[in-house]
Amino acid sequence: MSTRVTRHPERGKYDRDTVDAILDAGFLCHVGFVLDEQPYVIPMLHARVGDVLYLHGSTASRLLQALASGARVCATVTHVDGIVLAKSVFNHSVNYRSAVVLGSARLVEGDEKLAALEAIVNHIEPGRWDVARRPTEKELRTTQVVALPLDECSAKVRSGPPKESPGDEDLDVPSGVVQLRWVRE
Amino acid sequence: MSTRVTRHPERGKYDRDTVDAILDAGFLCHVGFVLDEQPYVIPMLHARVGDVLYLHGSTASRLLQALASGARVCATVTHVDGIVLAKSVFNHSVNYRSAVVLGSARLVEGDEKLAALEAIVNHIEPGRWDVARRPTEKELRTTQVVALPLDECSAKVRSGPPKESPGDEDLDVPSGVVQLRWVRE
Repeated sequence: MSTRVTRHPERGKYDRDTVDAILDAGFLCHVGFVLDEQPYVIPMLHARVGDVLYLHGSTASRLLQALASGARVCATVTHVDGIVLAKSVFNHSVNYRSAVVLGSARLVEGDEKLAALEAIVNHIEPGRWDVARRPTEKELRTTQVVALPLDECSAKVRSGPPKESPGDEDLDVPSGVVQLRWVRE
Repeated sequence: MSTRVTRHPERGKYDRDTVDAILDAGFLCHVGFVLDEQPYVIPMLHARVGDVLYLHGSTASRLLQALASGARVCATVTHVDGIVLAKSVFNHSVNYRSAVVLGSARLVEGDEKLAALEAIVNHIEPGRWDVARRPTEKELRTTQVVALPLDECSAKVRSGPPKESPGDEDLDVPSGVVQLRWVRE
């Protein structure tokens, strides 16, 4: 990470607590992998169990092909918390929390697969695993779960009000943060 | 796309209207690119203008490095609309709309850069470009915008109630869809 040049280095966080909190706050991640020099980014469902991020998605066929070749992957989880309206266009921003996990993934099998599916289902809808009918052997065989260790991970967080450039403070432009959040209904 | 094997081929959509509607319904995309055989997926802000997807993000330094080498990228936009609770764990799903754009990106310069920034700002907050202070030349120089043509794009959509397996219909398990949506406050 030491070679990274970014406009906002202060937003970088590298502690596991921050990363874990971001991963745990959502169930949708975007997983990147490479096939024939073309990167693909697909949405997958996830749950963290300790030091492992489990990934599941019906669109995983290309990912499985990439994994079979031992490829590296990247899983990114982003939450948008607000729109930051500054007095200048330049200082407009978005409040967000984003976690990035890099590594080599592996296919999950056997008892671990069942436990991973339970974690993912309960992560999306708490307690659901004990309510719904459990998977049959045949259903399990047609379900793929991928595991990614949390060895290489980082987070970026932007929060708070707009930061104005010197001289902009007195401009007659309404500014502030529009909060965004999810609701279930 | 002809070689793709997927568990739910019926979810694939390849018409531009569907792709455009998904891109236009949000402003956050996840952009994948490759550096030294490692894929990276970073969140960026986007706006579509005709047949071009414009991307902007403060975390773009690695992306810019990849672009300088002429690399391929992938931009994915996903909206989660609901949690699909079926009577069996196996048939649980998520209602979502996802668009994937593949291609070679280019750095945007000059008048096009200003127009792209206007599109992105107004896409996130309609009319904001005419309210806030416009960028100075110096601010423009430190802002990067990337363009990706919409030549290779596709979408996947899952909507509607759970699909139950034969024999599950009569199980005493509550089922249905939990709708999810964004609110501004």
